[in-house]
Amino acid sequence: MMNKGNLFIISGPSGSGKDTVLAKVFEECPKLKFSISTITRPMREGEKPDGKYRFVSVEEFENMIKNDMLLEYNNFVGNYYGTPRKYVEDNLNGGYDVLVEVDVNGAKLIREKMPEAISLFICPPSFEVLKARLSGRGTESAELVEKRLEAALGEISRAKEFDYVIINDKLEDAVRDVVSVIKCSNLKVSKKLDFIDEIIKK
Amino acid sequence: MMNKGNLFIISGPSGSGKDTVLAKVFEECPKLKFSISTITRPMREGEKPDGKYRFVSVEEFENMIKNDMLLEYNNFVGNYYGTPRKYVEDNLNGGYDVLVEVDVNGAKLIREKMPEAISLFICPPSFEVLKARLSGRGTESAELVEKRLEAALGEISRAKEFDYVIINDKLEDAVRDVVSVIKCSNLKVSKKLDFIDEIIKK
Repeated sequence: MMNKGNLFIISGPSGSGKDTVLAKVFEECPKLKFSISTITRPMREGEKPDGKYRFVSVEEFENMIKNDMLLEYNNFVGNYYGTPRKYVEDNLNGGYDVLVEVDVNGAKLIREKMPEAISLFICPPSFEVLKARLSGRGTESAELVEKRLEAALGEISRAKEFDYVIINDKLEDAVRDVVSVIKCSNLKVSKKLDFIDEIIKK
Repeated sequence: MMNKGNLFIISGPSGSGKDTVLAKVFEECPKLKFSISTITRPMREGEKPDGKYRFVSVEEFENMIKNDMLLEYNNFVGNYYGTPRKYVEDNLNGGYDVLVEVDVNGAKLIREKMPEAISLFICPPSFEVLKARLSGRGTESAELVEKRLEAALGEISRAKEFDYVIINDKLEDAVRDVVSVIKCSNLKVSKKLDFIDEIIKK
């Protein structure tokens, strides 16, 4: 019997450097599957239909909600965002590890539906670094920076809901840490029961 | 407040290559502490008092038992073997990770006293490799090899009691896996609570 894959939920506020970390993690884990979000906002210029999102109509999305076809979803300024259940379940059943990138609310919803999921929170190394990263190139207003900082701190205060916290100070360390968690999850005894039986039955 | 260290319990039958793996793990994790066993058998020629064991008299050992100074102990052909509690607890409280190498019975006893311990079982990659490793250079009698094989399989059948199973096929992979488990344990959210509070209180 094949072992099911693991589901990894990753969250982190803007300023955590989450996207850069994840891009490198996927380079190091070529078999890891990325769960593409389904969204209803219009495609932007330059976006591809097979990129980071799958674009559907509001009607299609509401149909998915009705049929419990989403692991989590949210409505943000009039657009729906969600994680389709089928892609995740098919890949897990096929033995693949799947990674879902969602915000802290989405993480909570997925955890409720799939309590065996392993959740990681990517965190900036300090308040000062967070502030510097959010201020960016200094083109945003102080008010906007303050707002983004508030939102980031709100997310960080919920890091305690996660299984692992990855501090993204040096990129290569953060990548190595995420990869360690992914590897470790496959060393758990629950993944080795068939292997053990195979040896002792001889 | 400083985080306590993690206690790692490692077991594995002869033929698992456990000692070779551990020697490399300690090279890669210089801060990891090895819990030295206390034993009552006489020192062998060439053994040093500060090596792999601490040698005490039977009287001293039985005194340690009486005063609950051992996390686990055993009596094997008239000699006591045990894991002193103080060394482990002092280092954990000092923030150090500690590794204890014991058999499957010792692992069970330590787990009962310290349920937060993380246990790893080092396993040969197959029955055939196990048999080949135990046959060694062919100087042992078939009967002795058979006996050691039985004992090893008995231990492997109890691998299910452990948190992680490390398959020692290629040495460097097994070492990397053990190191991953050690690293992961320090990424758990329980180790990061102070860090999170530090950021959000600003």
